[in-house]
Amino acid sequence: MRPVVPVSGRDPKTRLSPVLSPAERREFTEAMLADVVAALGSAGYSPEVVSTGPVECDAPVTVDDRGLDALVNDLLSAGPLAVVMADLPLLTAEAVDRLFAPDADVVLAPGLGGGTNAVVCRHPDFRVDYHGASIRDHRRIARTVGASLAEVDSRVLATDVDEPADLAEVLLHGDGAAADWLVDAGFELSFDDDGRVGVARE
Amino acid sequence: MRPVVPVSGRDPKTRLSPVLSPAERREFTEAMLADVVAALGSAGYSPEVVSTGPVECDAPVTVDDRGLDALVNDLLSAGPLAVVMADLPLLTAEAVDRLFAPDADVVLAPGLGGGTNAVVCRHPDFRVDYHGASIRDHRRIARTVGASLAEVDSRVLATDVDEPADLAEVLLHGDGAAADWLVDAGFELSFDDDGRVGVARE
Repeated sequence: MRPVVPVSGRDPKTRLSPVLSPAERREFTEAMLADVVAALGSAGYSPEVVSTGPVECDAPVTVDDRGLDALVNDLLSAGPLAVVMADLPLLTAEAVDRLFAPDADVVLAPGLGGGTNAVVCRHPDFRVDYHGASIRDHRRIARTVGASLAEVDSRVLATDVDEPADLAEVLLHGDGAAADWLVDAGFELSFDDDGRVGVARE
Repeated sequence: MRPVVPVSGRDPKTRLSPVLSPAERREFTEAMLADVVAALGSAGYSPEVVSTGPVECDAPVTVDDRGLDALVNDLLSAGPLAVVMADLPLLTAEAVDRLFAPDADVVLAPGLGGGTNAVVCRHPDFRVDYHGASIRDHRRIARTVGASLAEVDSRVLATDVDEPADLAEVLLHGDGAAADWLVDAGFELSFDDDGRVGVARE
């Protein structure tokens, strides 16, 4: 099994632009990537990072700007593959173990909002399509190619960070590089009148 | 272990008012409650429902309008207790098994946004405080009373339904009463220009 972490190395996490400068978005992206690489490492895996541009991380990096679907589908055609997104700063070794545990041709970890945050694929014909509510497409594609399917029920695998509101999850639960980065940058939890949690910056 | 499901039986889920009438909010609340009771039942537990007003469900119902903290803390003073929220329509028997599995004095299932969606308590001194980012308070309270603590990493336990955006998770992943209710009421997934998922109603 070959674990790959795709990451955007050029202008990452544009939906965080309201709260982070371009340089900060890049730093925070590298912090989240460090957490993902560390969790995979703690679980005994040595991931490869595939980035659309240069990134700093504690894993071998290949730069490839083909776009996520083309990239992953090319890798899938070469054999068994695990794809773990780079924006999962809450990821733990335990969740990684659970991702690799099912004896199924395809294992999916749904993201909040319909995405697919991790895939483990042992079937030669499965392909990815990350646009829209990809979890539904990936279930359908697995069915179409006759692959057995399992899904992993994990909050930390489901929590990808795209928008300012997502940063609250990192502050609530994170203890890695991304959480440290946010604290150092002056972020803290805030609460609106309904008791909903968000973030504020000093 | 005594599993209790607290539910609001009077004017439930007011944050769904933009998309559901008062009568619909009540019906949908009962559908979500049915899913929670069914998941607990499938895992071999016979839950008691404690409601602030009359509700229909396939479990014994006690009406008690004292408020969540007072109610749960009174029950906690009587012995081991599991508290599972009623608005977790994606709950599965497997997630219930994982909630009860850890050999810890207190087991917490974090909700998205800092809430605490389930507690299993085997410690005489642990008490709840559901206001604000309760997961942090519950971690602190467990530490203060010297209780060993475990947390369950589950997306379905984390997904409580409070706001219209949360309904998308039910349509994406649900196959129970709440998902059926939404489909029958004409809800379907929608996508904005950024590919983010939401719901629309016919």
